[in-house]
Amino acid sequence: MAVRPGKSQLIVHQEHPLNAEPPGDLLHQSFLTPRQHFFIRTHGSIPAVDPASYRLLLNGLVQRTRSLSLDELRSMAPARTVTATLECAGNRRNELMAVKPIRGEVPWRAGVIGTAQWRGVALREGLLAVRVEADTRYVAFTSLDEAQFEGETVHFGSAIALEKAYSPDVLLAYEMNDEPLTPEHGFPLRVIVPGYIGARSVKWLREITLRERPSTNPYQARDYKLFPPEITGQTVDWSRGKTIEDLVLNAVITTPQEGETVAAGPTRIQGYAIAGEGTPVERVELSVDGGKTWRTANIIERADPYSWCFWEVTVALATGDCQLLVRAWDTSKQTQPEDVRQLWNFKGYMNNAWHRVKIHVS
Amino acid sequence: MAVRPGKSQLIVHQEHPLNAEPPGDLLHQSFLTPRQHFFIRTHGSIPAVDPASYRLLLNGLVQRTRSLSLDELRSMAPARTVTATLECAGNRRNELMAVKPIRGEVPWRAGVIGTAQWRGVALREGLLAVRVEADTRYVAFTSLDEAQFEGETVHFGSAIALEKAYSPDVLLAYEMNDEPLTPEHGFPLRVIVPGYIGARSVKWLREITLRERPSTNPYQARDYKLFPPEITGQTVDWSRGKTIEDLVLNAVITTPQEGETVAAGPTRIQGYAIAGEGTPVERVELSVDGGKTWRTANIIERADPYSWCFWEVTVALATGDCQLLVRAWDTSKQTQPEDVRQLWNFKGYMNNAWHRVKIHVS
Repeated sequence: MAVRPGKSQLIVHQEHPLNAEPPGDLLHQSFLTPRQHFFIRTHGSIPAVDPASYRLLLNGLVQRTRSLSLDELRSMAPARTVTATLECAGNRRNELMAVKPIRGEVPWRAGVIGTAQWRGVALREGLLAVRVEADTRYVAFTSLDEAQFEGETVHFGSAIALEKAYSPDVLLAYEMNDEPLTPEHGFPLRVIVPGYIGARSVKWLREITLRERPSTNPYQARDYKLFPPEITGQTVDWSRGKTIEDLVLNAVITTPQEGETVAAGPTRIQGYAIAGEGTPVERVELSVDGGKTWRTANIIERADPYSWCFWEVTVALATGDCQLLVRAWDTSKQTQPEDVRQLWNFKGYMNNAWHRVKIHVS
Repeated sequence: MAVRPGKSQLIVHQEHPLNAEPPGDLLHQSFLTPRQHFFIRTHGSIPAVDPASYRLLLNGLVQRTRSLSLDELRSMAPARTVTATLECAGNRRNELMAVKPIRGEVPWRAGVIGTAQWRGVALREGLLAVRVEADTRYVAFTSLDEAQFEGETVHFGSAIALEKAYSPDVLLAYEMNDEPLTPEHGFPLRVIVPGYIGARSVKWLREITLRERPSTNPYQARDYKLFPPEITGQTVDWSRGKTIEDLVLNAVITTPQEGETVAAGPTRIQGYAIAGEGTPVERVELSVDGGKTWRTANIIERADPYSWCFWEVTVALATGDCQLLVRAWDTSKQTQPEDVRQLWNFKGYMNNAWHRVKIHVS
């Protein structure tokens, strides 16, 4: 069953499975992204779950297997709220596709990102309840959905290291922006792994399995990995890829949009920026002369450590064609790569080159 | 008591406390750094510890306080060996000092880095033994040394997040390259936190304290933090700094050295590169034309995930003055900042700008 948001203004790239993102101007309307503007990333079905009969299973390397109702889960520990940005590893893939084709992947623009207040129980409370065995290295999540992966019907799944799972900010979440999760965002329960790519925040959570070895779920073992540019789908050895976990520094211009015409004179440029956990955005810079000189933008709203920030800067633009460039620096003094051509990879992940928007000034 | 390595070829910046580093050519002689070539970073005394009466204390938010002899510690769990590079946050500070003065800090060159095989017991075994309370967020380490911090006598100390402490690769180490630790490297027991700056790998470990709030040890709370360039020692609010944890991507030319004269023709350039945990070095590039074009170096030895790699590349050099430039890329497709001037901070930490070496070709 595919649930569609009513009267959505999202750009729908795919209907089955449903994959949709907001345009940039919509994204910048509010710092916490309302659910109707939040990107939808699915790999298969959107399951219809009866909350009364729902059970979360905890198993694997545990001293005590558990099967928890939603009420039991909620009563395990006080609720925690975390403001976290979810960003898909494929955000800005369309720019990589312009360098060289990428097959079988959604041509995401720069809107597969959104921020919400997530409320739930810390995953760590669940780990304490089942008593983790000493050999445990990974915590694997399996969804209730059904997806097609290379001709097989599978459940979407993902895993994180035990260390990350002990962070008090990794949640088993049942609310998004003070409302119950909607079906397309994981009702009745999803994982939220702040600071990691969205794929790790498994929706419609069915099962948590403690493991010694890495997960074999195809979406963990043969997807969401990075490879050097010479590797293709034909030559890939999945075991050699870099599993993508942490978000990387990124900055995007949401206003104006590519191809827009703006009036000459002082013009307000706006956008978002995001950084890896522990290294917040320190500075956002805009260039209108191809990177020769940079203006520092004002960061107008932020909610560290797991959230994007919004920035804006007003620049005087002369008539003619103009390319806007943006880049961010983080508190570790790191900045983004200049050239998208150096980031191409055959799955089209993790593009964080300087964002370039061509506009016309009249 | 200050213990000095006999007939050391280290460059000694300071005698009390002892701070010394190897020159680049020495550093590149072997992939595992022999102890006599390993940098020495101390903040105070080098304590003389009697191993027979030594006890490690585990306390704070635990259900069971422990005091462990070395034998008890060794018998807790099988020994683990981890190959890890330790790098001081102040590595390459001298280049930052050339941009603008930095007061009261050691003028480190590019040799405050070294790699060893560390053997010990996983810290996590100690955590399991004392049973950590649910409120715990940090694991704090205190040394047996005595140091002067702003006129007070203190013990060096540091802390890491509980999540990191659960990594099986964080060690309570008693051996370095198959030999007992030497006094200057932490005998009889030190922490090894792979992937983090050296300051977190506390030597002469006296005490492990589980805490809900961040450590107040001055070396954690008022040191080893990053600030924007406009902040100085006079204006600093320490609570607003970014606590430095993960190592960042870095590449250094060890041969030839700055100011050296080499013969024209094919010349072998060598060095090391290091990356953050989970994002190994993917490529090292050398430029002899100021960054217009880049040659890919060969990575000749590596030991991921916590270790540097060694690289080399042979380039044809024409007579005259020449500037060699090196930069690395990691598997997350990130690269280093170009310009050291953009990295200046008043404590002089984390310089990872493109490394530049000026030589003369005759």
